[in-house]
Amino acid sequence: LIENVAIAGVGLIGGSFGLALRAAGYRGTITGVSSEATIRSALAVGAIDSALTLPQAAAEADLIFLAQPIGRIMDTLRHLDPLVDPDALVTDAGSTKHAIVTTAQNALHRCHFLGGHPLAGKEKRGVEAADAQLFQGRPWVLTPSNPDALKTDIAAEFIDWLHKIGARPVILGAEEHDRLISFSSHVPQLASTALAACIAELSPESAQVSGPGLVDSTRLALSPYDVWRDILATNSAAIEEALTAYIGKLEYLRENLRTRDLQREFETAAQFATRLREFSH
Amino acid sequence: LIENVAIAGVGLIGGSFGLALRAAGYRGTITGVSSEATIRSALAVGAIDSALTLPQAAAEADLIFLAQPIGRIMDTLRHLDPLVDPDALVTDAGSTKHAIVTTAQNALHRCHFLGGHPLAGKEKRGVEAADAQLFQGRPWVLTPSNPDALKTDIAAEFIDWLHKIGARPVILGAEEHDRLISFSSHVPQLASTALAACIAELSPESAQVSGPGLVDSTRLALSPYDVWRDILATNSAAIEEALTAYIGKLEYLRENLRTRDLQREFETAAQFATRLREFSH
Repeated sequence: LIENVAIAGVGLIGGSFGLALRAAGYRGTITGVSSEATIRSALAVGAIDSALTLPQAAAEADLIFLAQPIGRIMDTLRHLDPLVDPDALVTDAGSTKHAIVTTAQNALHRCHFLGGHPLAGKEKRGVEAADAQLFQGRPWVLTPSNPDALKTDIAAEFIDWLHKIGARPVILGAEEHDRLISFSSHVPQLASTALAACIAELSPESAQVSGPGLVDSTRLALSPYDVWRDILATNSAAIEEALTAYIGKLEYLRENLRTRDLQREFETAAQFATRLREFSH
Repeated sequence: LIENVAIAGVGLIGGSFGLALRAAGYRGTITGVSSEATIRSALAVGAIDSALTLPQAAAEADLIFLAQPIGRIMDTLRHLDPLVDPDALVTDAGSTKHAIVTTAQNALHRCHFLGGHPLAGKEKRGVEAADAQLFQGRPWVLTPSNPDALKTDIAAEFIDWLHKIGARPVILGAEEHDRLISFSSHVPQLASTALAACIAELSPESAQVSGPGLVDSTRLALSPYDVWRDILATNSAAIEEALTAYIGKLEYLRENLRTRDLQREFETAAQFATRLREFSH
């Protein structure tokens, strides 16, 4: 039974997980492993009950949730094996999965591991923005290295909690996740960054003749590089491939600006955008 | 004195202009030239007082506002010259300016012309969505073919009304407008259409692992082709050039996914996106 949860990295995602568990009726312990300043804020908002070091927290935890940046998750995985209870489940919130799952397979032998990626976020970061409703209705990807990884008692109980906090578990292979997310998240990010950087360099005066469309198109460009460095480094191959397909589509539109082929592209695009909105609600 | 306004094309922009004039204290006549169904709706929402044919409306109008699609504006300009009062001002709301201004220069000799482009819009189209506040705080580009075109009494009075309805007049050359807007509107549209079309074709399952970022990135992809056909046809050269620069930037990002050059691009992009938001408020 999950009665002791350790959250490593109590930021927006880690903190929201703590708040969401409480709101869903979880009555066990929630321990935070984070920097001193973060711990103070996390205690203040009620996302955790207490703070420990990683070795202390890991020794006691039934569920260890790694909600750090990707690079830090991989570091933690490399040190975690001697520290854990053999019945514990280690899971994570990293937004690329192949590198993390591979690291876990090589480093974690004494306990269960299940890769995860909650597709939830906010423009604000940090535990101050944590929200018990953050995962409500949102996909939470799980990437078991084999189907049995979902069938252990502890994994089944974790998935029960995901349902209780309102998330929609989606089962994918780690590489499949990384390929799908390169199209749905990584290319959109680079498309927005490239657009804003291109206008900033070549036509900054365009800002005076802009409307709400450019504001939407540059929202992702506000994202800080420090979040993206690890994502780009751990999913380069899939991103290169998806970005090449995107560039190819832009070239095709450029060659066909005055032809009726554009109409078909607009229709395909509008249909997908419409379905995406139905899917999101 | 402007006491008789004719609006040709009483859709979202034309209808909002009528409502905005009334809300700003305009007491003269507002005549609509549109299809029968549109006229009924425009009368119902109070955007116009009455409807006439183009020849009837043009004969009486001090200000003729062409708020039709770009191709229709150019058609109207080609027929308007024999119909207008010599003291009248013809202006328009077309979202590309060089083709329209050139058409007006060739076709309109008996009255004044001043090209215009209000940077305002909504997801909904049609006079039913018309809004007296639509232009509030938004740029309204004017593209005089020479500086004197702004100094006639009728142009000065028109610009006064733009201020009174809350718009911010911005003076640009027609080709300069088209170049700036290719970056701020046309490339963002094609970037969004290309993204949605590319995912729809190559990775539609990515919809299950998408978040609010993809929703923002595909909002423009909902735009209908019939609005864009004329825009793309009348600004192809500028769009091709801007799109080539955008593709070049995406290729640069792809080649540098794992280098620190990406950090500089993210920073440039975030700075521009931040300034854009300050500018928009």
